[in-house]
Amino acid sequence: MALYEIFVTYKKGIFDPPGATAERALRNLGYEGVGSVRIGKFIQLEADADEVAVREMCDKLLANPVIEDYRIESVGEA
Amino acid sequence: MALYEIFVTYKKGIFDPPGATAERALRNLGYEGVGSVRIGKFIQLEADADEVAVREMCDKLLANPVIEDYRIESVGEA
Repeated sequence: MALYEIFVTYKKGIFDPPGATAERALRNLGYEGVGSVRIGKFIQLEADADEVAVREMCDKLLANPVIEDYRIESVGEA
Repeated sequence: MALYEIFVTYKKGIFDPPGATAERALRNLGYEGVGSVRIGKFIQLEADADEVAVREMCDKLLANPVIEDYRIESVGEA
């Protein structure tokens, strides 16, 4: 089976509530040097599928193409 | 500011509900070749902080060290 790593991030300009919360919380903990924090998804997918099929899975289910971007990396075989 | 990418994943043996749901949903959509799906977090952090401080942020707030592992990558300057 092929192994894929998929990185799902909010598109530029889309508000990222978990990221904003973490940003504020880190500053409250005393980490003054914190700039921005963006929190997306890191998906590890094991499948007998080529990258075209994985892209389709992302568009249909794993990401929301309206507000999210994603990047697929093929990382070998299981 | 330094840019870090942090990959948070469930530890081996810890049940991953979003991953299990996605796995089942993909099979229901007809993707028979899907093996396992694991869903973690992909965090993009911009901070004036060294990797020791970032590790501390992960342990305190960004990850749950009881059930999650994380990997930090330094990816340059903003």
